[in-house]
Amino acid sequence: MDQTIQEAVAKSFASQGLIKAIGAKLGDVGDGHVEIFLPFSDAVTQQHGLFHGGGIATLADDAAAFAAYTMMEDGRQPLTVEFKINFLAPAEGPQLRAIGTVLRAGRSVAHARADVFAQAEGGEVLVATALATIKATRAVVEMG
Amino acid sequence: MDQTIQEAVAKSFASQGLIKAIGAKLGDVGDGHVEIFLPFSDAVTQQHGLFHGGGIATLADDAAAFAAYTMMEDGRQPLTVEFKINFLAPAEGPQLRAIGTVLRAGRSVAHARADVFAQAEGGEVLVATALATIKATRAVVEMG
Amino acid sequence: MDQTIQEAVAKSFASQGLIKAIGAKLGDVGDGHVEIFLPFSDAVTQQHGLFHGGGIATLADDAAAFAAYTMMEDGRQPLTVEFKINFLAPAEGPQLRAIGTVLRAGRSVAHARADVFAQAEGGEVLVATALATIKATRAVVEMG
Amino acid sequence: MDQTIQEAVAKSFASQGLIKAIGAKLGDVGDGHVEIFLPFSDAVTQQHGLFHGGGIATLADDAAAFAAYTMMEDGRQPLTVEFKINFLAPAEGPQLRAIGTVLRAGRSVAHARADVFAQAEGGEVLVATALATIKATRAVVEMG
Repeated sequence: MDQTIQEAVAKSFASQGLIKAIGAKLGDVGDGHVEIFLPFSDAVTQQHGLFHGGGIATLADDAAAFAAYTMMEDGRQPLTVEFKINFLAPAEGPQLRAIGTVLRAGRSVAHARADVFAQAEGGEVLVATALATIKATRAVVEMG
Repeated sequence: MDQTIQEAVAKSFASQGLIKAIGAKLGDVGDGHVEIFLPFSDAVTQQHGLFHGGGIATLADDAAAFAAYTMMEDGRQPLTVEFKINFLAPAEGPQLRAIGTVLRAGRSVAHARADVFAQAEGGEVLVATALATIKATRAVVEMG
Repeated sequence: MDQTIQEAVAKSFASQGLIKAIGAKLGDVGDGHVEIFLPFSDAVTQQHGLFHGGGIATLADDAAAFAAYTMMEDGRQPLTVEFKINFLAPAEGPQLRAIGTVLRAGRSVAHARADVFAQAEGGEVLVATALATIKATRAVVEMG
Repeated sequence: MDQTIQEAVAKSFASQGLIKAIGAKLGDVGDGHVEIFLPFSDAVTQQHGLFHGGGIATLADDAAAFAAYTMMEDGRQPLTVEFKINFLAPAEGPQLRAIGTVLRAGRSVAHARADVFAQAEGGEVLVATALATIKATRAVVEMG
């Protein structure tokens, strides 16, 4: 694992305003996988006091995109083209853990999965799973 | 349009901590459609200063789920089973507008689309489109 | 509308073995949209005698991919990176009609929607809607 | 594993006209998972002679839906509400193998994953992965 890419992921992650607003934290960063934590707080709830699906999706998006980032050529930046997410169980408890994993990394497009777990005393429960398509862009705002 | 359901949507929307954290605002609420705005701020950005995909997805999720809510039987609550979202163009500008529209409302499951536009002086640009499956639950945390 | 691209779509469509096996037919081809028909037959059913979701998805995939093809630079070929489809109503009746529409055509990636209708005497019913990501490839089997 | 559900899956699978048309075959059926094979033939190709994405999606749809079927209460039937599929690599070779796995089986809705592999002499290659939402219906054509 290149130290440079770990630092690049950490720097990019930390510069996201939404991530700061919801209080997510970067976990393990390795070749083709990235872990993100989201502690429960007032900033992440939906109407019944559970974690909001949008917050869960934010975690999944970032975990997938940064996992793809770890496998890109120098000078490329990750851009989420699309993702989809299934919510399997109520997301509650003190903290969520998302793990993004690259399924296939092409030169210009990567496919990644992200699983999100609710962490509790008795262990972890899979609360959501996502699939994402990530583009390796050369420029910041290049789309399509 | 029943006044009661409009109030129920507004109350439920306002009680979401994530929505407060990102500063989203409820717009028009009608039979089978719900509009949500997201002004640009430091709380919604990704690493390049654009709107974060997770924030866009949060808007789409809520617009779809609350649109479905407007067509549910009394006593039912919306629960997003899954959604998917394509990001079509860079999301930048002073404000996003999401519009959720019910495509089909069954008794227990509804299908909804959500389109998200970036609003600028020259008009609106479609920056994302989503499809969602919304369950009409009888209890708060019922899943599956 | 360039005659050449219409012919290219028709030729490519006709060369698909699966399309022959299920009996699908090409309809209107225009800039950014392609129409496909699927008559009901024994080759398209699921276990209850309705149109099979896989056949509906095949229609949606082709309608989206060929719609994207109509907007690609010369020498590029469409390749479906991913798609998702919601089934809104039972797909029954004498024929399905799918219409693929490009939402945004970038140079290397296009986003398209496909709507599938069941045609009956009283009119059309929307039975499925899909979103697809289509890559503009230079080579036949390039992925990612 | 109940013998009855294995027989029910086999009977339902065999009654699908589309499955016959493309020549798919049922493999292993267990609690929460179902395997399906698709030999290469003229009935499954796209324009470049590879397996068509629509055929791959048909396999994924069936594998996910029948996997969900194995975990349903008596008298319930599986109905695919929606699915999404990412195509990771060119699907070529003598045969595809799909494996559907239930991620969570609720009383009325199940979430399932389906992975599709191209089988070749050197081993298997993951060519597609899908997520599906499956409804447990009481009646044949109940939607929503």
